[in-house]
Amino acid sequence: MSENNENIQFKISDELIEQVQSFVKRKDDKGTLDLLLEYHPADIAEIFDGLSINQATYIIKLLDSEKTADILMELDDDDREKILASLSAKEIAEEVEELDTDDAADIIAELSEDRQERVIAQIEDEELAADIQELLTYDEDSAGGLMAKELVKVYETWTVAGCLRRIRGQAADVTRVHSVYVVTKEEKLIGRLSLKDLITARSEQKIADIYKSDVDYVNADEDVEEVAKVMAKYDLEAIPVVDKDNTLLGRITIDDIVDVIKEEADKDYQLAAGITQEVEADDSIIELTRARLPWLFLGLIGGVGAFLIMEGFEAKLENYSILFLFTPLIAAMAGNVGVQSSAIIVQGLANDDVKGSINNRLIKEMLLAALNGVILALVLFLFVWYWTDELNLAIAISVSLVAVIIVAGLVGTFVPLFLDKRGVDPAIATGPFITTSNDIFGIVIYLMIAMTILGI
Amino acid sequence: MSENNENIQFKISDELIEQVQSFVKRKDDKGTLDLLLEYHPADIAEIFDGLSINQATYIIKLLDSEKTADILMELDDDDREKILASLSAKEIAEEVEELDTDDAADIIAELSEDRQERVIAQIEDEELAADIQELLTYDEDSAGGLMAKELVKVYETWTVAGCLRRIRGQAADVTRVHSVYVVTKEEKLIGRLSLKDLITARSEQKIADIYKSDVDYVNADEDVEEVAKVMAKYDLEAIPVVDKDNTLLGRITIDDIVDVIKEEADKDYQLAAGITQEVEADDSIIELTRARLPWLFLGLIGGVGAFLIMEGFEAKLENYSILFLFTPLIAAMAGNVGVQSSAIIVQGLANDDVKGSINNRLIKEMLLAALNGVILALVLFLFVWYWTDELNLAIAISVSLVAVIIVAGLVGTFVPLFLDKRGVDPAIATGPFITTSNDIFGIVIYLMIAMTILGI
Repeated sequence: MSENNENIQFKISDELIEQVQSFVKRKDDKGTLDLLLEYHPADIAEIFDGLSINQATYIIKLLDSEKTADILMELDDDDREKILASLSAKEIAEEVEELDTDDAADIIAELSEDRQERVIAQIEDEELAADIQELLTYDEDSAGGLMAKELVKVYETWTVAGCLRRIRGQAADVTRVHSVYVVTKEEKLIGRLSLKDLITARSEQKIADIYKSDVDYVNADEDVEEVAKVMAKYDLEAIPVVDKDNTLLGRITIDDIVDVIKEEADKDYQLAAGITQEVEADDSIIELTRARLPWLFLGLIGGVGAFLIMEGFEAKLENYSILFLFTPLIAAMAGNVGVQSSAIIVQGLANDDVKGSINNRLIKEMLLAALNGVILALVLFLFVWYWTDELNLAIAISVSLVAVIIVAGLVGTFVPLFLDKRGVDPAIATGPFITTSNDIFGIVIYLMIAMTILGI
Repeated sequence: MSENNENIQFKISDELIEQVQSFVKRKDDKGTLDLLLEYHPADIAEIFDGLSINQATYIIKLLDSEKTADILMELDDDDREKILASLSAKEIAEEVEELDTDDAADIIAELSEDRQERVIAQIEDEELAADIQELLTYDEDSAGGLMAKELVKVYETWTVAGCLRRIRGQAADVTRVHSVYVVTKEEKLIGRLSLKDLITARSEQKIADIYKSDVDYVNADEDVEEVAKVMAKYDLEAIPVVDKDNTLLGRITIDDIVDVIKEEADKDYQLAAGITQEVEADDSIIELTRARLPWLFLGLIGGVGAFLIMEGFEAKLENYSILFLFTPLIAAMAGNVGVQSSAIIVQGLANDDVKGSINNRLIKEMLLAALNGVILALVLFLFVWYWTDELNLAIAISVSLVAVIIVAGLVGTFVPLFLDKRGVDPAIATGPFITTSNDIFGIVIYLMIAMTILGI
């Protein structure tokens, strides 16, 4: 992912961080302000990564809330929580008033319930307070939870000239105007107009005559991942959100969707790697342990299971104890094939690429696994035959490898498809889950087939 | 990733696909046209997934190129290649003329070199042809390769009124106007203006007086992943691209960046799962085998290595052959820990979260692995002691588990950091690479420590 990026102009240097630290230590407020003045809030948030929480809080209180609100939004959840803890309800309310409604609601949602009430009570702008309270009612993984109330809307009865005049007022509150939404008197969404359309239209034209009625929209209770898919598919930069009666409630912009896509990708990647909750390299050892230990326990149980199975076979395989020396190989192959198969299915499901019947998928995977398995088994056959000079043993091990690979491929294909049908996130089927179950299946199948072939 | 999504309004049904097929089979051109009229190009591309290439090509030739150009852009690379193969250079040129320059250049880049020349020669718009030829000179993974030539620019000397008048002409060619870029007479980028700024400014004001000089930009040779990071970090919806002399060349929009982010996430996910090249669930068995077999071979070699190591120890461990029955457990734990550690580092590197020295990372990982290892080893100790009633054996196995987990964690942390320093994509270090090497390390360490403790 990360490449050599020395030449990028947006990098925060260690020198800069040290400079900030020394200004803060000397309580040189003017120096700190002058130094940070030219930096983007996202850069200052990055500088904060190199500071202690006390130093960061000091700067937050020093800068004016127009800038600090954006810095707070850019911080890690953990750091923001710590800084907010040392701000009063009044101070938080001041920050929140500088933010768009969606960000404001996100920050407030992170507070304890009675703190939420106290902060909202301190917000002077009553409309903002009401908007935030509305946004807090939606599930955070729904379109309603992601949307902002800020948008520019015009009524179908307006003219272009009247429209331009009036939206100047609305637009001042909206960071970015992608589309102007056209509504009826009853606030029902009926269409859209781009600013470009407005600028290029004649000023006496009626909105009703020039608006585009093919407006995409989502319902407030739609899952954010579906919203992300729709926006990516249709290359939308903003999408309006409506309620069941088609009343325009808010809009979602692509920058929020970029975050959803990244989080989703990170989550799936971590699940595939056996990490159960969102963690970062800089989290504490306790947090990292909490995220990693559960899957490792699963692996341990699988390993104990494999031991018990092998022990059960041990007496019968007394003269073929060499078979046990291949169990790590068998387990590794079963695990690798299973992870490959499940990863392809999980990605296909995520991109809506997996169509058709489960049976066809399984037949294809079986053929694929058989092809891979036969190629690999041939190599293994030649090695074992050459090394041990026992043809039967070489046949037994390589034939069972083919069987193990086919079963592993089928399990890796079936489990995520099954989970998806059941409405469970198929990504949890990748990684340790598939590896562990395939280890056990693989070893049982291997030992049984080998025994049959060797006539034990 | 994928949830139950029955209720989404954007779904292509099997009935619709059958309907299209029957219209095409009956050569009912009017019926086909009427049916497809209301669908978005992205939806028609999805319908094409259910059609044969001949049927899809038939529809492409039937619809007018304004719509088909967008459909082509939405198709899988493979399908597009097949359809383009059956179009003449003239027909392709007509499609290309309907597209933005970035998409046009992408399509042409997929053709063979002499076909590229023939298609470009057929493009009637000379400026477009020149733009495409310029875009084809950039590396496809660079900002230049991703940018479009379409943008709205104004000279600093213009007034707001003159500006609005003149950009009406420019804007007609630009699908979305995010920002208006302000340039000097020599075409050097000096700032930006949002359409909102223009609309809300007084018409007699000079651009020089109202433009914002804090414009972010990237160089044409910047890596697209860096561009994606910058745009995500600063929540940009478009970014101008300049050459070394700061001359404005083009712009990159967020929808292209969304694709970059998704492709990057898909690639890392596949690497972690042991898939070497971009494949999809619907690719052919041969393509899938080509992507999967190399890592499986690596796993096979690792398994043979593990066998050879165990065989080397076999004679010495005659009386402790039970140790071999735990090798799948040891290998699985080493693999899981290694994958977890490397995944966290790979993600941290991708998000620029990994700062500070490698040594500190390794010390932290060692403590983390030791903590996890001791917890897991305690459980294993109790099991082995209970099951075998041999205290020494239980101690030997559980102590070596701790050592194996620590080494696996260190390898998983060090390898991606090392690759990244060397300028290699650290994502290749995850998955089978780490699992296989940790299998071998793990088994060697396990057997050696166990032997030492058991006094063999």
